[in-house]
Amino acid sequence: MKNRQWVLRRRPESDIEPGDLELRESDVRPLADGEVLCRNIYLSLDPTNRIWMSGRDQYLPPVEVGAVMRGGVIGVVEQSRSQRFRVGDIVKPVFGAWEHYTIAGEKAMRPHKPAPDLPLTAQMSVLGSTGMTAYFGMLDIGRPKPGETVVVSAAAGAVGSIAAQIAKIKGARVIGIAGGRAKCDWLVNELGLDGAIDYKAGDIGGALDRLCPNGVDVNFENVGGRIMSEVVARMNDFGRMPLCGMISTYNNEGAIPGPEDFGRVLMHRLLIQGFIVIDYLPRGGEALDQLAEWVRAGKLKWKAHVVDGLENAAEALGLLFSGGNDGKLLVRVSPEP
Amino acid sequence: MKNRQWVLRRRPESDIEPGDLELRESDVRPLADGEVLCRNIYLSLDPTNRIWMSGRDQYLPPVEVGAVMRGGVIGVVEQSRSQRFRVGDIVKPVFGAWEHYTIAGEKAMRPHKPAPDLPLTAQMSVLGSTGMTAYFGMLDIGRPKPGETVVVSAAAGAVGSIAAQIAKIKGARVIGIAGGRAKCDWLVNELGLDGAIDYKAGDIGGALDRLCPNGVDVNFENVGGRIMSEVVARMNDFGRMPLCGMISTYNNEGAIPGPEDFGRVLMHRLLIQGFIVIDYLPRGGEALDQLAEWVRAGKLKWKAHVVDGLENAAEALGLLFSGGNDGKLLVRVSPEP
Repeated sequence: MKNRQWVLRRRPESDIEPGDLELRESDVRPLADGEVLCRNIYLSLDPTNRIWMSGRDQYLPPVEVGAVMRGGVIGVVEQSRSQRFRVGDIVKPVFGAWEHYTIAGEKAMRPHKPAPDLPLTAQMSVLGSTGMTAYFGMLDIGRPKPGETVVVSAAAGAVGSIAAQIAKIKGARVIGIAGGRAKCDWLVNELGLDGAIDYKAGDIGGALDRLCPNGVDVNFENVGGRIMSEVVARMNDFGRMPLCGMISTYNNEGAIPGPEDFGRVLMHRLLIQGFIVIDYLPRGGEALDQLAEWVRAGKLKWKAHVVDGLENAAEALGLLFSGGNDGKLLVRVSPEP
Repeated sequence: MKNRQWVLRRRPESDIEPGDLELRESDVRPLADGEVLCRNIYLSLDPTNRIWMSGRDQYLPPVEVGAVMRGGVIGVVEQSRSQRFRVGDIVKPVFGAWEHYTIAGEKAMRPHKPAPDLPLTAQMSVLGSTGMTAYFGMLDIGRPKPGETVVVSAAAGAVGSIAAQIAKIKGARVIGIAGGRAKCDWLVNELGLDGAIDYKAGDIGGALDRLCPNGVDVNFENVGGRIMSEVVARMNDFGRMPLCGMISTYNNEGAIPGPEDFGRVLMHRLLIQGFIVIDYLPRGGEALDQLAEWVRAGKLKWKAHVVDGLENAAEALGLLFSGGNDGKLLVRVSPEP
């Protein structure tokens, strides 16, 4: 029985290049007592994967050069030497990886609580880490009040689109920033946002001025760089900025720049808070129950962009940086049961 | 009866120059019904005065060119056409200014609650806006826990020295950053800080590494620029940074730079919050009661640097930027009653 695994061969210097990751074949070893073999079905591709590939200061140890690439997966148990798991169970390994099979001890394997009415791809997007990231960032840190103006960057992205809709549910006026006409139309026509800004069309500042005449109360930040500076420059007194990511900076080495005029944080008494979804896992149940309720009520829409085949994972990751994906980016490693 | 007032003649371009402010003499006009004439006793000089002199984006309207300079004062009523105030009352005008006499309607005049056992200079420092700034910034935003490491920049300054002692009272390990040997000795020997760093001696980063071997949990930020970057670079996961001021940047025009590696805010889930003491005025009583109790118990030390004569106010303001003051900087405009 053969495994296939993506190994980090070298740290990318800027954009991910062919050869930074390498697909290797190996034998699947026999299980020890208490271990479980999971055949992975979906692999989640996320901007933070690029952080893990780098040597920069980060929130988890970087993936070592020569090690299998880390990534969130959902799969099905094919062999079990644990009392806790049976063949056919749907599971999420705690330490998921870019591989066909994952072997883990029973304590490093999480049973998946099924939502039988919702597809498995939903469990890897709106009802997975993606949805929880949006939920806690927007509600715990952003705390939008009815009538306030909320801006979400990368608003057509997996996290951004959920965050924007949560702010709408809470009664805020929501403006999304996304790349291209089609995504902007989707935000306004399908998700019901109050406006969308195509950053590829230029003059983000002018568009923000038009669409946010009363300034910005919450900036759900996914992008960093110039877009972040333009939004921060329009934030109101006591504005909140959940700092979820800065994808525009991940392909560059070295220090990540902040908002151009940091003085605004002082003068307008802004709150900026970085957060990572893993910090909220103990409260995950609260988020998932609420998110599922909103999905079932039709208040929360989501979509998945599924790329077939583990062998296409490395190339697919680049879509996140070009904006080429349309919805939560997943790799279908093997068929659903 | 003559008044003397400092007028903003032009906005400084960098350091405050002679001629940016001008002392003018004028007649004191007769009072209208409901008005009060206050003879100012102490004028508070604060780093934020430099912000008000500039045209930059800020938290209050800038002082207009040609207008009397704004500043906090305490004084004594010399004439009153209000039922609420009597001659001899100690008062704090809501809109204080750099002037000998202040005339205000009774609603723009605050009665001063006396603490007869403490000198009037205390009411303008540890028991005034200065103390409240330190109190709310450290306790509401910084929230130091026992055993955590707290760094305070401009720690020998009026706000910094109070903030540092509050963190000590709360059981934290406190390291101060100040300019010069004498100030550092005062922080350690008199205020009981756990260590002090003389930023004028260079290698702030190395000193932080030595004195904060477990990293920094709270950074009470008064200085900005390079010192802020060095502290932020050592902040721990879930660290808090009350952003009180960035004095090192006020003499430069244009955007105020943030911490060099803003990525750390994301990776280490830092909280950065700008604050201005005026936002906390409704809760001022809580702070002043607690601060007075600590002062009386000998837990909170403070000192004032009093410059005699309103005519010396403009030059004295420069002391804040050179670090030439030793304690809360006040101008004695006229004698205490």
